[in-house]
Amino acid sequence: MRTRQVIVKELPKGALFGDHFEMSEAELPALQDGEVLVRTILMSIDAANRAWMQGATYREAIEAGDAMHTGALCEVMESKSPRLAAGDIVFAESVWADYAVISARKAAKMPRVPQLSHLMSVFGIAGKTAFHGLVSVGRPVPGETVVVSAAAGSVGVYVGQIAKAMGCHVVGIAGGPEKCGWVVDELGFDACVDYRDPAWSKTLKGACPAGIDVYFDNVGGAVLETVLFRMNERGRIVCCGAVSQYDASTPNGPRNLPGMVVVKRLRMEGFIVMDFAKDDEKALRALQNWVASGAIKVPEDIVEGLENAPKALIGLLSGDNRGKRMVRVGADPS
Amino acid sequence: MRTRQVIVKELPKGALFGDHFEMSEAELPALQDGEVLVRTILMSIDAANRAWMQGATYREAIEAGDAMHTGALCEVMESKSPRLAAGDIVFAESVWADYAVISARKAAKMPRVPQLSHLMSVFGIAGKTAFHGLVSVGRPVPGETVVVSAAAGSVGVYVGQIAKAMGCHVVGIAGGPEKCGWVVDELGFDACVDYRDPAWSKTLKGACPAGIDVYFDNVGGAVLETVLFRMNERGRIVCCGAVSQYDASTPNGPRNLPGMVVVKRLRMEGFIVMDFAKDDEKALRALQNWVASGAIKVPEDIVEGLENAPKALIGLLSGDNRGKRMVRVGADPS
Repeated sequence: MRTRQVIVKELPKGALFGDHFEMSEAELPALQDGEVLVRTILMSIDAANRAWMQGATYREAIEAGDAMHTGALCEVMESKSPRLAAGDIVFAESVWADYAVISARKAAKMPRVPQLSHLMSVFGIAGKTAFHGLVSVGRPVPGETVVVSAAAGSVGVYVGQIAKAMGCHVVGIAGGPEKCGWVVDELGFDACVDYRDPAWSKTLKGACPAGIDVYFDNVGGAVLETVLFRMNERGRIVCCGAVSQYDASTPNGPRNLPGMVVVKRLRMEGFIVMDFAKDDEKALRALQNWVASGAIKVPEDIVEGLENAPKALIGLLSGDNRGKRMVRVGADPS
Repeated sequence: MRTRQVIVKELPKGALFGDHFEMSEAELPALQDGEVLVRTILMSIDAANRAWMQGATYREAIEAGDAMHTGALCEVMESKSPRLAAGDIVFAESVWADYAVISARKAAKMPRVPQLSHLMSVFGIAGKTAFHGLVSVGRPVPGETVVVSAAAGSVGVYVGQIAKAMGCHVVGIAGGPEKCGWVVDELGFDACVDYRDPAWSKTLKGACPAGIDVYFDNVGGAVLETVLFRMNERGRIVCCGAVSQYDASTPNGPRNLPGMVVVKRLRMEGFIVMDFAKDDEKALRALQNWVASGAIKVPEDIVEGLENAPKALIGLLSGDNRGKRMVRVGADPS
């Protein structure tokens, strides 16, 4: 069986361009024991995808010539594993392709839900990352001030809405006045500061009159440096990403690290969502309640077509998404 | 009554020099209610003294014209406070001077111990900082690898010895082969790496075959950047100082922050010893036991004479001390 797939033609040295990718066709290998043939429905587009091209992180690095890796929501077409059957919906470690043959161990069976895309956003890694990072790492107390960068991003939209639901004062950081307006008007943050405005440090100070207790950092770099100056003593920084560094060959470190951590007795802590798998049920229960009550909205940003995946990722790295970005490759099962 | 005192003539912009200080004489004010007249015995010389000249940190900033601030072991000569009496030995927030008039609230009465200087080293802030930072923030498990920078410094000598007593593999970082040799031979660290050696990153790797679980960071800067690459997943970084940054007008931040914190899911946490005052009794009990059993040695580095205090501090910032540095201003009480 043949499939379209998007290959990483060349690993990026600096910024990522469309030329680093190439659409190709391949013959799928015959199914072996323990494997499944899957049809891709929705692919998850994440800043971390870019990091995978930088060498081994917490998962295998991508090399030139590989089909681009992705997390994807798929339908099982054929199974040689006792764990999965044709017709199952799975979240799989797969590749940018219409079809793929993968190990059944890399696919987790998903429940049937009214809206399949929610499994990739609020009930998926984005929502769980926001929940575990904020609740278990940041540990905000109602009444505290929570700041989140990439506030309009896949994780940021939930961090802010969860913090709001928990009774915190919530300030987003995002790029451009239009996006900041959307975060406040659509998602109900108390304020959202545009880091592209040269005076943004002052605006941030004004938006956080009681200082900052928890900073959920999705970007690192100069934004982190600025926020550090506004942190309260014993503040917590949830280190969830360093997107400002993924797409640069000479990353810069905040000049006030570790000085501010010492002087203000801060805690900076990194995590990945898998570390908290034991609490997933709790997270999903809370998220389902908030979505059902309307306390949390679910913005999704779906790009149509496998061929548009490179553009979707490159755009995401420059921050052109609103909420969780996905690429739709195939239709929902009927 | 008159006293000699050392004034901060000018605040340093970059490196600290002897010219920033000036010996002078002053008439002490008359004792007011709530105040005590103290005679200085030993002054604590700490990297943090330099930070106090950078502006407000967790305590008042020093300004040009002020007598230099210090923590000091003193004898009370005269008291107008019900809390203290003539003859009491106190640890006080005082100044570089033979005598001073201070608020009794800034003086804590000390027990009489066989060796008075131990109140400033192993049973003082240095020992307690090492204990609380390592035990309560770093939380090493026996068998883990603990690395400490400024290993020959006032805090570092105890961090390594406590970690060793707890059953950890202990590696120091210090400047120069002579100092590294002293750390291993005299203090019993498993290894000590000379960060001035261009190949030190490799040496560190070899000295930590199982990676690094806890890094007790006294220096920040390029040393922190290098250690970050060797941290194990879920490693902990105890942020105790950033001495590499105090003495520089344009500090540099580690370029791999916060990237490594994200990827390796590290925890970086700052603290000051006062945060753990409730556990001081526990710390002192443990330290007394280890000193009594010989598991912990108490290296002290005592410079004679008030007039040598500037030199003692400047030298400390370039790392010429072995263990806790103090300046002896007056004799122990008979």
